[in-house]
Amino acid sequence: MSPKPLALSLGDPAGIGPEVTVKAWLALRESGPPFVVIGDHDSLASASKAGASILKRVTRTADAVDIFPHALPVLDLPLRAPVVSGRPDPAHAPAIIRWIETGVGLALTQDVRGLVTAPIAKAPLYEAGFKFPGHTEFLADLAKPTPYKGARGPVMMLTAGGLHTVLVTIHNALAEVSSRLSLDRIVEVGLVTAQALRQDFGIEAPRLAMAALNPHAGEDGALGREEIDILRPAAQLLRDHGENCSDPKPADSLFHAEARARYDAVICMYHDQALIPVKMLDFWGGVNVTLGLPIVRTSPDHGTAFDVAGRGLARAESLIAAIRMAGDIAERRWGPA
Amino acid sequence: MSPKPLALSLGDPAGIGPEVTVKAWLALRESGPPFVVIGDHDSLASASKAGASILKRVTRTADAVDIFPHALPVLDLPLRAPVVSGRPDPAHAPAIIRWIETGVGLALTQDVRGLVTAPIAKAPLYEAGFKFPGHTEFLADLAKPTPYKGARGPVMMLTAGGLHTVLVTIHNALAEVSSRLSLDRIVEVGLVTAQALRQDFGIEAPRLAMAALNPHAGEDGALGREEIDILRPAAQLLRDHGENCSDPKPADSLFHAEARARYDAVICMYHDQALIPVKMLDFWGGVNVTLGLPIVRTSPDHGTAFDVAGRGLARAESLIAAIRMAGDIAERRWGPA
Repeated sequence: MSPKPLALSLGDPAGIGPEVTVKAWLALRESGPPFVVIGDHDSLASASKAGASILKRVTRTADAVDIFPHALPVLDLPLRAPVVSGRPDPAHAPAIIRWIETGVGLALTQDVRGLVTAPIAKAPLYEAGFKFPGHTEFLADLAKPTPYKGARGPVMMLTAGGLHTVLVTIHNALAEVSSRLSLDRIVEVGLVTAQALRQDFGIEAPRLAMAALNPHAGEDGALGREEIDILRPAAQLLRDHGENCSDPKPADSLFHAEARARYDAVICMYHDQALIPVKMLDFWGGVNVTLGLPIVRTSPDHGTAFDVAGRGLARAESLIAAIRMAGDIAERRWGPA
Repeated sequence: MSPKPLALSLGDPAGIGPEVTVKAWLALRESGPPFVVIGDHDSLASASKAGASILKRVTRTADAVDIFPHALPVLDLPLRAPVVSGRPDPAHAPAIIRWIETGVGLALTQDVRGLVTAPIAKAPLYEAGFKFPGHTEFLADLAKPTPYKGARGPVMMLTAGGLHTVLVTIHNALAEVSSRLSLDRIVEVGLVTAQALRQDFGIEAPRLAMAALNPHAGEDGALGREEIDILRPAAQLLRDHGENCSDPKPADSLFHAEARARYDAVICMYHDQALIPVKMLDFWGGVNVTLGLPIVRTSPDHGTAFDVAGRGLARAESLIAAIRMAGDIAERRWGPA
């Protein structure tokens, strides 16, 4: 088998995707892992100081590996409308969606080793009829017909500075979080996470910590009953499944260095419970990993940043970390490239 | 005017209060600030390796300053029942409450420069008829008849590693937080905080940041409307009052070093939103400061820790930091000791 690249879907071309993609290639061209961009050639050319001279169109992804040290390989699926940096446009939506679909398809057929997705913005996609809450759910839907051995996600992991967090609820108003918690969902998140830690992160006997929902872990029910009614039974069920999972712990005591050394991933109940610590540990280098899918998928943990797009200011640490992590996971899952 | 000490109320004698108090005296005896313990002499003697030899009973708080470098001064209000470390006992409740009342009284009459409170446990106090949600509300009630110029609290500040957080809601189940938010409460917290930063922390032109309740600050209402309906109007009202306060910002982008440099205190909507970052920055050295009262009051940010009490394992960094901070605030508020 000849070596294969990762795929990178370009995301919203009016956001910072094209410029951080070029920066990521400059940072990784020598060390790898090699990747092929699925997107619009001309958007990348505009985002590069050297213009199109650093780009090379490919038609077969397998060619990308040899090209990568010399040029950024692009599977060109061009846009039909001009791009203005910082101005999202529903006219781009069909192409943005097609880039993601193509990336997932290539990952499912194992023509690429995994997919890294540059950020999309929901509003312009919704205007064009897109029906998913976000990237993760769309990818999971595309991968649904493909069989997958083991506990199936998607589960969203956010990771930085050695901390791995997984989310039970994601994009919900804080007032809705409690009503969205369920025993089944927490157990699903725990099982998918433990499996991913073994399979994708090389941790043989993963240790899960569970963050409580309420302050002081509810103080025996005085500050909320979710720990008693849902979280503690879920932790017990995970242990019944043979997984090493803690009872729910006060969230404010779980994220200092000494506490982090005691677990491999922490099950978080809501968005900011996970994201505050992740972004404190590394504001610019966080990575989003989708667990429990038949494909390897990572993304940066930031958005399209339309407000700074097109000015060359955007920082690429998060995308670079996402590409490296996709390469590492692919190596554990599929073997060396 | 002769120099005056701080007072330290001993808290629950079955918790770690006595041992961390002795450790704090050992750490501060030379540098100060001097403090007098209001509590049970024999509990302190049991908590000290050198027994009662390091203690000195006082009847006048003013004597404590000269004694402090040589012995730990104690205003002895003895317990009526024996203490078993790690076993809270409602029989101690009247004494624990009296120590706090005495400390507040001495602070209100300016016989001491401020009050540091070692931790109490609520359950045994409740059994004895105590009616307050915690220390802070009890202190505020005791101080209520005393006039106070300016915006009146209590507002709870939690601080560590240079980060100052203030809490809009404190000990509430997460599901209740949204319904407890109000324009008036947020504005009150903001005004009390700005005033305290000027008066107690020496910051002439304080900059307040406001943390959003919802992920992505609600994404224009898609993930919750509190930012639109309550938080943003509160921030505007604070600006109308002449204070420098930001609009609500996504909480996950407020706590890395670069963001922290942009404000002097952050208004947090719920317990863990403040406590996760505070305890990540310094798990052992956080301080709780009560703002907007006629007395200076600080406390460690941990509890009674009955599970480790009496074994000499408890760490005193948080209490030491609380005593130092009370000394600093007293100096700004009342002038040099």
